[in-house]
Amino acid sequence: MLENLFADAVARDWDDSPEGTLRIAVVGCGGHARAVSLPAIATADYCEPTVIVSGSAEKRAELGETYMATALDYHEYTAGQAVDEYDAVYVSTPNRLHLPHVETAARLGKAVICEKPLEATLERAERLVAACENEGVPLMTAYRMQAAPVVRRLREFLRGGGIGEPQRAFGDFTYPALDGERGPDQWRLDPELAGAGALFDLGIYPLNTVRFLFDSDPVAAWGDTRSTGEAFAEVDEHSDFSVDFGEYVGNFSASFSGYTTTRLTVQGTHGRVVVDPAFGSTEDRDIMVETKAGRVRLVGVGANETREEFDYFANAVLTGGEIESDGEDGLVDMRTMTAVLESAETGSRVDVRN
Amino acid sequence: MLENLFADAVARDWDDSPEGTLRIAVVGCGGHARAVSLPAIATADYCEPTVIVSGSAEKRAELGETYMATALDYHEYTAGQAVDEYDAVYVSTPNRLHLPHVETAARLGKAVICEKPLEATLERAERLVAACENEGVPLMTAYRMQAAPVVRRLREFLRGGGIGEPQRAFGDFTYPALDGERGPDQWRLDPELAGAGALFDLGIYPLNTVRFLFDSDPVAAWGDTRSTGEAFAEVDEHSDFSVDFGEYVGNFSASFSGYTTTRLTVQGTHGRVVVDPAFGSTEDRDIMVETKAGRVRLVGVGANETREEFDYFANAVLTGGEIESDGEDGLVDMRTMTAVLESAETGSRVDVRN
Repeated sequence: MLENLFADAVARDWDDSPEGTLRIAVVGCGGHARAVSLPAIATADYCEPTVIVSGSAEKRAELGETYMATALDYHEYTAGQAVDEYDAVYVSTPNRLHLPHVETAARLGKAVICEKPLEATLERAERLVAACENEGVPLMTAYRMQAAPVVRRLREFLRGGGIGEPQRAFGDFTYPALDGERGPDQWRLDPELAGAGALFDLGIYPLNTVRFLFDSDPVAAWGDTRSTGEAFAEVDEHSDFSVDFGEYVGNFSASFSGYTTTRLTVQGTHGRVVVDPAFGSTEDRDIMVETKAGRVRLVGVGANETREEFDYFANAVLTGGEIESDGEDGLVDMRTMTAVLESAETGSRVDVRN
Repeated sequence: MLENLFADAVARDWDDSPEGTLRIAVVGCGGHARAVSLPAIATADYCEPTVIVSGSAEKRAELGETYMATALDYHEYTAGQAVDEYDAVYVSTPNRLHLPHVETAARLGKAVICEKPLEATLERAERLVAACENEGVPLMTAYRMQAAPVVRRLREFLRGGGIGEPQRAFGDFTYPALDGERGPDQWRLDPELAGAGALFDLGIYPLNTVRFLFDSDPVAAWGDTRSTGEAFAEVDEHSDFSVDFGEYVGNFSASFSGYTTTRLTVQGTHGRVVVDPAFGSTEDRDIMVETKAGRVRLVGVGANETREEFDYFANAVLTGGEIESDGEDGLVDMRTMTAVLESAETGSRVDVRN
């Protein structure tokens, strides 16, 4: 079983070879959208960026030309301008602005793929999901880890009992928020716009990925947040939290400062898997699977997972198929992380079930 | 700095080349004492086993002959028989019996090295420490990790700022309690004798080692315990707990069942260290140190740390020197783990400070 674990490392297990191309309006053109998402959409098999929405005239001009797309400002988008030029909307604004742009998309009857976390608060995230449900438009939460082919292979292996029953999970994502061009004025450090700091921005990765791997639903959560750096006075610089999944516990950490680490470990009754690095969108993953039968290590597994993510979305929308990382998936993480924030305030374990 | 990190990997930084040999009475001759401790004492530089105390006539006969030692039963030991044949006592009984045997040793004026955890409850551990203080006898808590030369090198590196300021620690020790010859009747599964399960027996390793590496004192602790296996109905089979050290948080896990893993990670502002395996007494450690300057990996670092532990103890007693892993060190862990048990009951964060 270990030998051919990653035999189809980059295969797609969801591709229905749909007819046509999904035309996507990209709403919000920050660093991630420009550097990662737009190139991924532009090179995907089943979608293309046909509309650019940005508050910056400079970005509209540059990106409109680069992608031969219609460029709108937010007023024009909200007013429904160029509504016939796109079938779906990708919302990549600061968290606190997801709701109005998703509401617009739903009102216009467009399918939605929305960045994670779904919103800055649980209540707003619930309204966001309800808006899509009420208008009957598909909604995908943009969990790129779920689209990464090796993560999907790993899920098959784990759900097939590859390491026995799950007993514990660890996940750790430290990514400096102030490195490079990202100064202290960014929206991620603004509690109004972001909702929370490292927990919402980074902690969501190990949390959602573990839930995806084992199809687990949180029962309760507890944890702590802390900040020492001046730039992090209003959001959590560090978060350490645990999630009770009923059968096992996940222990997760996220930091906006420190030495970059992105690591995921799952342990079972008969083995373990260590992915390190695990969560970067551009790093080659290093995956070690160990059971009593032996140890397999796979280093540098290809496939652009952001492109996979958008093709997964386009495939589902074009064929009317199911989207696994749907709004409810995003809400479960919002509920869990909101419980962590409450636990950090009260010092108590918080129930997460509905 | 990274290049010569482990240049003196097996060197002793505490050896005063004392005169003479410390004669040790070994009280309690279970599996660990017979397989690991007795051979270590017998081959150590500064101590030797001269008295064996066991409730089993068979063990007394066998071990007395093997080590050319006087063999006593517990009544004879408590009565002070052969008191002139030993200078110190190593207590290796079930946790709940440490107190009476340490009280005897203290009353007889013998130096004490006592297995961890110090006792089955915090209150009894406090009485144990007080007994030694009242009689003025040295007391060492038997933390073998602190005696491992590579762990001591790692401490120098970390305290010298090798990875910057500590930001997070992870420790994970899963060791099946029922594997091999260890059936469900063992004392470790009896709450009266053990005090707690995986938390006390295994969780203490990452907890104490992290405290040792960074000279950290717990501020608060929280966590969870759980059991699913029938043999673990009365003690925790699994424990997941976090310790607030003021400047950073340690996240620890211990399990009495599952795939064996022993791993320690410390992360700082400028790098990280991963030790995997970390806590086994006979495995070769694999240590990875990573900073922006590069990555060093050291596999298979020698030195019998249990022998080091007893030589460290003998050196200190023979020279009247300080013992770092003293009774207070053992009490801090008892306080912390007792707080974890309380937190698991109440679901709340528990203060650990005095």
